[in-house]
Amino acid sequence: MAIESKRAVVLLSGGLDSTTVLAMAQRDGFLCHAMSFRYGQRHHVEIECAARIAARMKAAAHRIVDIDLRAFGGSALTDGIAVPKNRSPQTMAEGIPVTYVPARNTIFLSYALAWAEVLDARDIFIGVNALDYSGYPDCRPEYIEAFGRLAALATKAGVEGAPICIHAPLIEMTKAQIVRTGLALGVEYALTSSCYDPAPSGAPCGACDACQLRAKGFADAGVDDPLREMFA
Amino acid sequence: MAIESKRAVVLLSGGLDSTTVLAMAQRDGFLCHAMSFRYGQRHHVEIECAARIAARMKAAAHRIVDIDLRAFGGSALTDGIAVPKNRSPQTMAEGIPVTYVPARNTIFLSYALAWAEVLDARDIFIGVNALDYSGYPDCRPEYIEAFGRLAALATKAGVEGAPICIHAPLIEMTKAQIVRTGLALGVEYALTSSCYDPAPSGAPCGACDACQLRAKGFADAGVDDPLREMFA
Repeated sequence: MAIESKRAVVLLSGGLDSTTVLAMAQRDGFLCHAMSFRYGQRHHVEIECAARIAARMKAAAHRIVDIDLRAFGGSALTDGIAVPKNRSPQTMAEGIPVTYVPARNTIFLSYALAWAEVLDARDIFIGVNALDYSGYPDCRPEYIEAFGRLAALATKAGVEGAPICIHAPLIEMTKAQIVRTGLALGVEYALTSSCYDPAPSGAPCGACDACQLRAKGFADAGVDDPLREMFA
Repeated sequence: MAIESKRAVVLLSGGLDSTTVLAMAQRDGFLCHAMSFRYGQRHHVEIECAARIAARMKAAAHRIVDIDLRAFGGSALTDGIAVPKNRSPQTMAEGIPVTYVPARNTIFLSYALAWAEVLDARDIFIGVNALDYSGYPDCRPEYIEAFGRLAALATKAGVEGAPICIHAPLIEMTKAQIVRTGLALGVEYALTSSCYDPAPSGAPCGACDACQLRAKGFADAGVDDPLREMFA
């Protein structure tokens, strides 16, 4: 009889980063339970990508949780503020962008923690990246460490001596390193969506911060983005 | 012109504890924004109580957030497990009760954090109590402290040097102390609901842990519970 794999919850947005994390968690032997969120995004492209990716990569399960961040407003991704386009790397590095969603990763990790507890999983994976998203407070290593300390105190598992661990394997990687790692693991980046403001067809805008960071990642890795021909 | 009060987010379940916390936060001069959750409870009595309490106590706003904890299962409050009745105080103190909802306070505080950030509030109030609920990992002082450390790292406010503070003013109080404090502040406990398993009319069962703790609190405080005549 096969030894049962360790269960893990993997936050899967449908983007390049979280898809790479799913591949890394599977490489490390975890039976991955993927979790995505509908949170009042303007577009559903990334949810559809997440569903296709979870199916193609044979995740053990995929849950899509509805959360209404629009109840709070406060972000270009969830209310009517325009997504910034064609910003320079210097501008991107300054301060917290308007695309920041209040407390988003805290809410996502809280749901992941609930599911992990029910699954009796001890591991949660999240694709945050501190180099490319230095302006987001909840993408920093010290934030992930603080959530780990919280998780150890928040749950039955923690009380019983086997706390849930938060893994953020991309946190110190460049986008090029992420792309190379994913390609080596067979990730099909054609299935992913990174754009903050895609066309109704799903085509990336090519100009928002996420598109620019993705393009630079592929360029630095010396490979073509399979989505390249979709760019406007 | 009046000086503007400091805004706070107050988690309001509609029960005795959180209603007392709302009164305490108002006493301390906060402009209180109440937040409640529909999370697959078997009953909606407590949400209706929360709405009446927020209106009667003139909260600045009241938001009811839908969250689907049933997607994860794992608790008597959200799935089909029977609510335990007539347990002794000794039994209540042992281990984590089946009414524990996975990661519930972490999810609630995450939403409160998001709303606080949008409101530019620096204070969140939660009515957790470590003495009566010693079996719940997310009602302990060290859990609240860990969430406070997370909140300081998770948000724009924290990055900009004014972190959001988590207040749990009941954490070390007995139920009798809570009742006396609330009565001194004019809390109308007839509006509150504590029962885990109320009748369709809203009448408390009188036998679940929450009903027993409430009854003991009023008895120890030497006052009558205004809900007493509703008991079956």
